[in-house]
Amino acid sequence: MLTNKEEKARYIKVNGKDTVAIIVNEGGLAAGTKFSDGLELKEAIPQGHKVALKDIEPGEPIIRYGMVIGYAMRSLPKGSWVDETALELPAPPDLDALLAQLSHQEGSLHSRTKKKQTQKTPLSMPNTTSSAQSFVAPSFQSEPPTFEGYRNADGTVACKNLLGLVPSVQCMAGVLKVAAARIEKELLPRYPHVDGVVALNHSYGCGVAISAAESEIPIRTIQNLASHPHFGGLALIVGLGCEKLQPERIATAPQHQIIRLQDQAGFSAMVAELMRVAEARLAILDQRRREPCPLSDLVVGVQCGGSDAFSGVTANPAIGYASDLLVRAGATVMFSEVTEVRDAVHLLVPRAVSNDVAQTLIREMKWYDEYLARSNVDRSANPAPGNKKGGLSNIVEKALGSAAKSGISPIVGVLAPGERVPREQSSQRATHGLYFAATPASDFICGTLQLASGIHVQVFSTGRGTPYGLAMAPVIKVSSNSRLAHQWPDLIDIDAGEIANGTAIIEEVGQQIFNYIIDVASGRKKTWADVHGLYNDLVIFNPGPVT
Amino acid sequence: MLTNKEEKARYIKVNGKDTVAIIVNEGGLAAGTKFSDGLELKEAIPQGHKVALKDIEPGEPIIRYGMVIGYAMRSLPKGSWVDETALELPAPPDLDALLAQLSHQEGSLHSRTKKKQTQKTPLSMPNTTSSAQSFVAPSFQSEPPTFEGYRNADGTVACKNLLGLVPSVQCMAGVLKVAAARIEKELLPRYPHVDGVVALNHSYGCGVAISAAESEIPIRTIQNLASHPHFGGLALIVGLGCEKLQPERIATAPQHQIIRLQDQAGFSAMVAELMRVAEARLAILDQRRREPCPLSDLVVGVQCGGSDAFSGVTANPAIGYASDLLVRAGATVMFSEVTEVRDAVHLLVPRAVSNDVAQTLIREMKWYDEYLARSNVDRSANPAPGNKKGGLSNIVEKALGSAAKSGISPIVGVLAPGERVPREQSSQRATHGLYFAATPASDFICGTLQLASGIHVQVFSTGRGTPYGLAMAPVIKVSSNSRLAHQWPDLIDIDAGEIANGTAIIEEVGQQIFNYIIDVASGRKKTWADVHGLYNDLVIFNPGPVT
Repeated sequence: MLTNKEEKARYIKVNGKDTVAIIVNEGGLAAGTKFSDGLELKEAIPQGHKVALKDIEPGEPIIRYGMVIGYAMRSLPKGSWVDETALELPAPPDLDALLAQLSHQEGSLHSRTKKKQTQKTPLSMPNTTSSAQSFVAPSFQSEPPTFEGYRNADGTVACKNLLGLVPSVQCMAGVLKVAAARIEKELLPRYPHVDGVVALNHSYGCGVAISAAESEIPIRTIQNLASHPHFGGLALIVGLGCEKLQPERIATAPQHQIIRLQDQAGFSAMVAELMRVAEARLAILDQRRREPCPLSDLVVGVQCGGSDAFSGVTANPAIGYASDLLVRAGATVMFSEVTEVRDAVHLLVPRAVSNDVAQTLIREMKWYDEYLARSNVDRSANPAPGNKKGGLSNIVEKALGSAAKSGISPIVGVLAPGERVPREQSSQRATHGLYFAATPASDFICGTLQLASGIHVQVFSTGRGTPYGLAMAPVIKVSSNSRLAHQWPDLIDIDAGEIANGTAIIEEVGQQIFNYIIDVASGRKKTWADVHGLYNDLVIFNPGPVT
Repeated sequence: MLTNKEEKARYIKVNGKDTVAIIVNEGGLAAGTKFSDGLELKEAIPQGHKVALKDIEPGEPIIRYGMVIGYAMRSLPKGSWVDETALELPAPPDLDALLAQLSHQEGSLHSRTKKKQTQKTPLSMPNTTSSAQSFVAPSFQSEPPTFEGYRNADGTVACKNLLGLVPSVQCMAGVLKVAAARIEKELLPRYPHVDGVVALNHSYGCGVAISAAESEIPIRTIQNLASHPHFGGLALIVGLGCEKLQPERIATAPQHQIIRLQDQAGFSAMVAELMRVAEARLAILDQRRREPCPLSDLVVGVQCGGSDAFSGVTANPAIGYASDLLVRAGATVMFSEVTEVRDAVHLLVPRAVSNDVAQTLIREMKWYDEYLARSNVDRSANPAPGNKKGGLSNIVEKALGSAAKSGISPIVGVLAPGERVPREQSSQRATHGLYFAATPASDFICGTLQLASGIHVQVFSTGRGTPYGLAMAPVIKVSSNSRLAHQWPDLIDIDAGEIANGTAIIEEVGQQIFNYIIDVASGRKKTWADVHGLYNDLVIFNPGPVT
């Protein structure tokens, strides 16, 4: 089993303080394996799983990323396997204490600056390492790069030139599917500059208790999807007629057009009308051409799914480096997944550019804690068994690795679920920098919400592997280990496993991801998901009940 | 406006006690219109809307279906329009009081029969009209009819011969769509006795807090969808590999086969493997032939969506008559939509065949009250604006009309959301009779849950019109008014509006629906939704949070 005599035994220790490290070798390592520093495995340990670097007594903290990821449930001698049953989950950072600390600081900030709203200096938090304080963003040797995009009438830019069909409620999904298939087959070939037809497919309906406070989330999500830049302000808003969420609430752009199916004389008439209006729109879209745009017009989302223990040391830090490059070049980046960064909140708060931003971040986390508590669950419902099989013992370890996707840039803003990145009044460009977009960690729900928040491209890291994709925006798949990249050559776009293999460094893969983002945004490269047409359905986040 | 001098002015009064009636004439009636009984309209009233049959003082009850549907908010002179702003919503029936009443009766039942569990006499409730007591089911003049179905290995019967692809989580939706399209195009034509390929598309993922108490609902739903009789026990269960809901939990039938995408060597290999296994299954399914089956093998669901004021006097009573015919012939029927019958619960409880069934019915309603209360909403979130436009003033009026779909048969059982109809141990046939399947009223969520509960065919009444359909089972669309049937000739299967027009009676349309169900179940007729391939996506009911 698991032994590989040919290959040198290797582990990755992230931080000098760490008392555990993860096994790098593909297939894992056998009991008795010796490392160059003298460490000897007491038992076989699978790839990505943790080995104790010292004798750890029961109750003693277990340290990874320089942070406590849990407390030993039993005696863990040096060289033994530290699996998920060996760790007791620590209490999450206390959000109220963080808030109290901030309001104390706010007083002093006020007296110092008198300009709370525009305060841009990163906050410092006592007893935490403030990455923002030591923020040294990557720099460009020449001119900041541009990308090739379609300029929209409202000043935004599109990376895909799509005809959007946006239903108000799911009732009409069947008609839209039939109509979209016919538009694609019969009309689209005549309009070669249009990249595709996307009929949104979501589960919103009159069942959503529209008067519940939480219903603003699904409604805002659908509104913002309809006005996504990739639809160029020309989406067709398809209503039924009797629904609570009337299409007028979704058609917010000047050229949005509404078609109501209850006004049509049956199915054939519905399809004919959809095709008639679609063709007029295709003719307009077909006139559009790409032009060079500054990166300040670009919004990129980062996400992970099916993570393993390598995610936090390979793919996510490389994505974080790319994210810092993007921010440095003036772009907007958002990271998400509340339950997956909840346990790293004390590391994120000091990176907020202002007390307001820090408080909003904590309030979004608190909202989520309360939302989960209503059903007597907490963030420990994450991780999945596949995460554990991949070596991630608990949500703390997962969170520390997940947060690495955000790089080290200051956090300039926090978005509630489905909220659009605020635009600069003058240019209509996204206010640049790194945002935290508060979303569930579920891949397709996070994807849907990041689309609503306005991403042009998503970068998605995975260790276990998932064929996830989005019809509305390209998804660049980054594998955290080379095993997956080799196994799925026609799904993984970039292999960050080379960092663990020692054949590349974080900065190199980060630069590669950055370049790939620009190429994909410019239409010069296609992601594997776009090559195969692998698209998940949108899933609307509705924290309220259905009737 | 609204006047039609040619046509005789008509209204429908349902019960002798009613103080309001609904206007029948298409286009409504103008102020001053006189009826043959001397009633004169004080103002114009749209079709389906209510007219006051007497002077109603503020605070006085407004009676329809012989029941209080609200209290007058203002003075309503005889002949005036009673719209939704004229009614104050009454308090819903008190579930705890109903339960207390039952436990009192239980004592007396015990002392009378000593056999609580098998007590089959319908209960009587003081102060309510007990339909069950006066239950006279329709009868058949000849032999009970049969239908032509495919007999499954486990004793169940299928009305469609479908290859099912069932994903454990939504992550793989993209791959399944591509694979299903290729199976349909390249393989299906070689297997002419297979009716189709259905790749389920649902929104379940690791985000569902699997440890929350409510998660049993989505998990049971997916399990029961996978073992739906229309898949003949031969569904392919497609897992990713790292998910919490492992495919083994879904593959409950002996011949279910699992394919794990993380075991495959990339996208092309995934599609090739799915097609290889699919072809082997198609070959088996293609051997199947229909044979005559008794109606005791048939499970029919009834639902309504986009209702209007006619629904409760035309389509729903006609469906209720068909439902009684089905029950009489030994079939199983289920009606659903908790919030739409909540206000009629006091009429349903007396129809329960036992105290246990009555208590379960009330407990499901109580669960739903509490589920809604968690987010500070109640059943008044229903009806939709289209319902109101169609003349339905509030949920009480809607509920009284909605419950009519259940006919007058005794209620033999209550199903929790997604629960399968219990089978008889010996024959594996559904325990026959009328069930209440507790589901949300949302069309596609109710449809998904009724499929999980095992329906072969759904009968769906609509007044405003919706192109809703299900890929897994035929949906027969019944319009409550002829205006819709004439407007949507290629979507409405049966026009129950003729009842309001006076050109047919409830029993005739009910018999027509019954005959249509048998024809559709036997594959002799196709619903319009099946002709056009109009299929909504399944939406899993997850009352718990997502992480």
